[in-house]
Amino acid sequence: MPQQGPVRDDSGGPVRRADVDLGLALDRSSTRALPDQLEHALREMVACGELPAGTRLPSTRSLAAQLAVSRGVVVEAYDRLQRQGVLTTRQGAAVRVAEGVDGPPRGASEAPALPAHDPYTLRLHPALVPPATFDRRAWRGLLRRALEEVSDDALRSTSHLGLPELRTAVVAQLARSRGVIAQPERVVVTSGVTHALQLLAPLLRGRGPVAVEEPGFLLHRATLAGAACELRPVPVDRDGIDVDALARSDARTVLLTPAHQMPLGYPLAADRRRELLRWARDTDALIVEDDYDGELRYDRQSVRALQALDPERVIYLGTTSKVLSPALRIGWIVAPSSQLAGIHLLATIAGATPGTLDQAALALALSTGAFDRSVARLRRRCTAQRQAMNAALAAALPHLRREGVEAGLTLTLRAPGLQASQVMACAELQRVELFAVQSGDDALVIVGFGDVHESRATDAAERVAAILQAAAQS
Amino acid sequence: MPQQGPVRDDSGGPVRRADVDLGLALDRSSTRALPDQLEHALREMVACGELPAGTRLPSTRSLAAQLAVSRGVVVEAYDRLQRQGVLTTRQGAAVRVAEGVDGPPRGASEAPALPAHDPYTLRLHPALVPPATFDRRAWRGLLRRALEEVSDDALRSTSHLGLPELRTAVVAQLARSRGVIAQPERVVVTSGVTHALQLLAPLLRGRGPVAVEEPGFLLHRATLAGAACELRPVPVDRDGIDVDALARSDARTVLLTPAHQMPLGYPLAADRRRELLRWARDTDALIVEDDYDGELRYDRQSVRALQALDPERVIYLGTTSKVLSPALRIGWIVAPSSQLAGIHLLATIAGATPGTLDQAALALALSTGAFDRSVARLRRRCTAQRQAMNAALAAALPHLRREGVEAGLTLTLRAPGLQASQVMACAELQRVELFAVQSGDDALVIVGFGDVHESRATDAAERVAAILQAAAQS
Repeated sequence: MPQQGPVRDDSGGPVRRADVDLGLALDRSSTRALPDQLEHALREMVACGELPAGTRLPSTRSLAAQLAVSRGVVVEAYDRLQRQGVLTTRQGAAVRVAEGVDGPPRGASEAPALPAHDPYTLRLHPALVPPATFDRRAWRGLLRRALEEVSDDALRSTSHLGLPELRTAVVAQLARSRGVIAQPERVVVTSGVTHALQLLAPLLRGRGPVAVEEPGFLLHRATLAGAACELRPVPVDRDGIDVDALARSDARTVLLTPAHQMPLGYPLAADRRRELLRWARDTDALIVEDDYDGELRYDRQSVRALQALDPERVIYLGTTSKVLSPALRIGWIVAPSSQLAGIHLLATIAGATPGTLDQAALALALSTGAFDRSVARLRRRCTAQRQAMNAALAAALPHLRREGVEAGLTLTLRAPGLQASQVMACAELQRVELFAVQSGDDALVIVGFGDVHESRATDAAERVAAILQAAAQS
Repeated sequence: MPQQGPVRDDSGGPVRRADVDLGLALDRSSTRALPDQLEHALREMVACGELPAGTRLPSTRSLAAQLAVSRGVVVEAYDRLQRQGVLTTRQGAAVRVAEGVDGPPRGASEAPALPAHDPYTLRLHPALVPPATFDRRAWRGLLRRALEEVSDDALRSTSHLGLPELRTAVVAQLARSRGVIAQPERVVVTSGVTHALQLLAPLLRGRGPVAVEEPGFLLHRATLAGAACELRPVPVDRDGIDVDALARSDARTVLLTPAHQMPLGYPLAADRRRELLRWARDTDALIVEDDYDGELRYDRQSVRALQALDPERVIYLGTTSKVLSPALRIGWIVAPSSQLAGIHLLATIAGATPGTLDQAALALALSTGAFDRSVARLRRRCTAQRQAMNAALAAALPHLRREGVEAGLTLTLRAPGLQASQVMACAELQRVELFAVQSGDDALVIVGFGDVHESRATDAAERVAAILQAAAQS
C-alpha cells in the first residue's frame, strides 16, 4: 500500500529536526559511491568507540538533511549496517548502535554471535529459487555415495579444473540440455558464473575492453571492473545486443546473456546470433556466454546455447544456482581449445574450485538422472508461479509493460520515468527485497517470483504496485 | 638412484636424432614463458588435427635441440599436456597424441572420459596431507547433521561472507589456537588462502605495489600478478623479512608468512615483528598475514599470529587445507574493521564462497571439538613423519643444510649452485612430484613429507638425492 498522510520517518515517529549532528561529511568528488562512504564512516565511528553501543542515530531524513544527500543514501547505508549487525532497530523504534560491536576489538570469549536477521517481509530477489528446489534427502543419499566412492587422492588434493567425474558428466548434460559441444578436458568447474568471470578476468583484460549489455547485470560488471577490466556498455533491445554498435566499439570481447537477457528477458534473435558470430570471426573476437538460466524455459524448448554455433569463438558459462541451489556454488566454464592452456593456469591461481564432495554428489546427480528429474519438477513449479505472478502484475499494474519471454525466475516490469535507485530505496523502506536497473528514462523492475507461491501472487503484486507508487511520489 | 651409464631419453630408448621436425618456433621476445608457448603450440596442433591421435612426438632431447631450448622446457610442456590428457605415454614408450583429443570438437556422445592418471611414483608435493587426515566417517556424520540443521534460507541463497555459524565458530577457534583477535562480523569465509588473495587483490592493487617475500610462494605471486597487482620482492633471511629493505621499497602493503616462512621454514623473529608493525603504523601500511599452517608446530607452542599484535594493521588469512583437506576448499579472512566494507563488496563480486553444507559441517566440527581432535592426531602423525624424513635426508644428503623449524608439512633443503628449474625437471623425469624455488645461487628444495610414512622415508630421501645428483650433472 502507498504511504498516506503526514510524512513519517522510518522509526515510526514524526520527523524530528533536533537529531544529533554526527559531524560527518561525504566527499562528492570521490569515485566512491555516497552510501559506501557513509557506511564506512559510520562503521569507523562505531569501531573506534565514537558511537558507543546503544547510541540512537538520527532518522534517515534528518541525517540526509545534515549531509545534503538524498534520503535513499542514508537508507541504504543504515540498512547495510543493520544487515551486518552494526546497527539495530526494533519494530517502530529508532536505529541504534548494536551491542558488542563498538570500540576496539575484544577477545573471542566476548565475541557476540552474528545477529540472526531477515529484514524482509517479502523477497523478490531475482536469484531465489522456489522452496524445496534443493532436495535435502536426495542430496544426503548422493553425498553418502560420494563419500564412499571418491578416491583418497581426490580427498587429499585439489584439482583446480574440477573433479574428472563431474567434468565428464557436465559434458553429457550440456549436450543434452543446451546443445553445448564439448569434451571433458574443455570443462573447468567453477563456483558459479560470477566466480567464472573473476577467474577469466585476466584473460579478458588482456584482450582489451570488454563489451557488456546495457541494460545489463550490474554484479558482473562490478566483478570485471574489480579485476581492472575496462567495460564498454552496448545497447540491448528486444532482439538482444545491437551488433552494429558492438562492431563500432573498440571491444573484441563481449559478455552476453543470449538465452534470457538480464534484465529484459528476451533471447538473442536468430539474425543477431548470425551477425554476432560473423563479427566475432571477422575481428577475431571472443564471446562469453552467460547461460545462467538456460534450462528454465516454460513455453517451449529453450533456444540452444550460442556456443553450439561456434565452440571456438565462445566461452560458455553455466551454473547450478538457478536449478538446484545458489548455496551449492557450482558452475562451469566450457572453453575453446585455443583458450584452454590460459584458462587452466587461471583456474590454478584462482584457487576456488568447489568442495570435492559436492562435486562428486553433483556428478552422481547428473549421471543418475536425479538432476534432470529435479529440473523437470522445478519447471512445473516455476510455470505455475510465473503464470500467477504475471496475471497478478497485469491486474495490479495494468499500464506497465511486462518484458521478456516465459523463462527463468524473474519477470521484468518497465516503469517509465522512475529511477531504479528510488524504486530500490522505497522497496527497502517497505521491507521488500527487490532489484531494479535503469534503462534510459525507465526503471526496469526485476520481480523474482521464486519465493512467491501462486497463492501469494496477488499480495506480492500489490506490494510492488505500492512501491512503484511511493517511488513515483518521492 | 642417480642415472648411470649412457644418456637415455625419457622414452626409455637411446637418443634418436632422426625425430620428426614439428616445424615449431618459440618467441623469445614474448613475455610468455617458453614452456607455456610450447604447450600452447602443441595443443593447437592437436586441436586442429595437424597432429592426429597416436602421432609419436619427438623425444624431449630431440625437440629441445630443434627449438634450441633447454630440455626442461620440453619436459615441462610434455608433462603438462600429459596431465591434461592431450599426450600420453606408456611406461618406457614414446610420447604420443592421446586418442579422442585431436581435431575439431565433437558432439558429447563421442566425448571420451578424462584419462585417469597419476604419473608420479613418489609425491613430495608441499600441500599433501597424510592419508586419513580427513576422516570420511566423521565428516559423513557432520554432513548429515548439517543437512538436518541448516535453515531453508541458507540452502536457497548465498551468503558471500559465509555461513554465520561458521564465522562465529572460526572466531573462537582462532582465538584459542592462534591468538587471533576478532568478532564474527570481521570474518569472511573463503575457498582457501589463494582465493582470499584473489578476492582481496583489487583492494591491495588500489594501495599501490605489494611487497612479497623473496624467496617466497610463487603461486601467490601469480595470483596477485594475474589480478594486475605490481609486486616488490623483498629479501627474507632466517629471521624473516628484511624490514629495512621493505621500508626502502615503495610498497605500503606486504604479504607475509610469519608463522612458517614459505619456503625457508622459520617464524618471523620477535624483533622483526616489532619493526614490521612500527613500519606499518608509521607509513599507514597494511600487512597480509598468510597463516597457511600455523596450527602445525611440533616442538613447542606455535608463535601467535601477527594479527594479535595489531588487528587493525593486519588482514589475517587461514585455511583448513593443511589440517583437514585441500579438497574442502574452506579458509577465512579476518579483516581490520576499517577494511570491512570494502572486503564485503569484494566478497560479493568474487562469488566463490564454499558450499553451504561443507561450511555447516565445518562449523559443527569446530564447535564440537572434532576439529581440535583431528588436528591433535595430525600433529602426532606429522611429528613422526617429519622426524623420519629429517633423519633420512641427513643420512642421504649429509652436506646439505636443512632449513626451518619443526612445523608444517615440508622440510626445505638448500642445494648450493643448483637451478630450481633443473631440480624440478629432473624430478619429473624420475616421476617424483617435487617443488623447488630459486634463492640466489641456491635451489631451495621443498620436500613435502605428508605422503611419506616414516617407513618409507629412507627410500624417499634417496630418491631426492638421486634427483639432486641428476640436476647437478645436467
